[in-house]
Amino acid sequence: MYGLWTTFTTQTGQRDHVIALLLEAAASLETHPSCLHYIISISDEPDVLHVREIWTDAAAHLASLELPVTRRLITQARPLLEHVERVLEDHPLGGKGLM
Amino acid sequence: MYGLWTTFTTQTGQRDHVIALLLEAAASLETHPSCLHYIISISDEPDVLHVREIWTDAAAHLASLELPVTRRLITQARPLLEHVERVLEDHPLGGKGLM
Repeated sequence: MYGLWTTFTTQTGQRDHVIALLLEAAASLETHPSCLHYIISISDEPDVLHVREIWTDAAAHLASLELPVTRRLITQARPLLEHVERVLEDHPLGGKGLM
Repeated sequence: MYGLWTTFTTQTGQRDHVIALLLEAAASLETHPSCLHYIISISDEPDVLHVREIWTDAAAHLASLELPVTRRLITQARPLLEHVERVLEDHPLGGKGLM
């Protein structure tokens, strides 16, 4: 499996707008067999949010970036973002909550 | 919801031993209703591993540390660890893979 942890810093006051777009992205992946997790979270910083993704493999994740819905959402989100950081790429081994 | 991202640096060569203990911890939480995720992963660093936890709330997580099986596993793992870092505490909002 392939894991990705991404932290987004939004333009001031745009976090909720970006969250809505990312939740739409997650919904669009509900039936995508290679996407196991696409979870949005916030922490204490006002304009920061995190996306935790787990895919069957890196190639599946890469291919997903070409999906029309993903490309549209990236285009919509980009002007609302100040910084995007790929915090970690990892390999989930197992545990509770992995389908 | 309450999320936790912890990075463990093990003593040299002890990663697999610690992974086994953490997978045992995850198995012990399978029926724990407040634990939604307890996922172990590795990245490219040889003696480093990550645990991503999602709980219904912080109190449930705190209480779980008092469970006999958790206390036993922490006692077994402690001498195998060089460093434990709580990388992030967050609040998962939604997305794919959250039960």
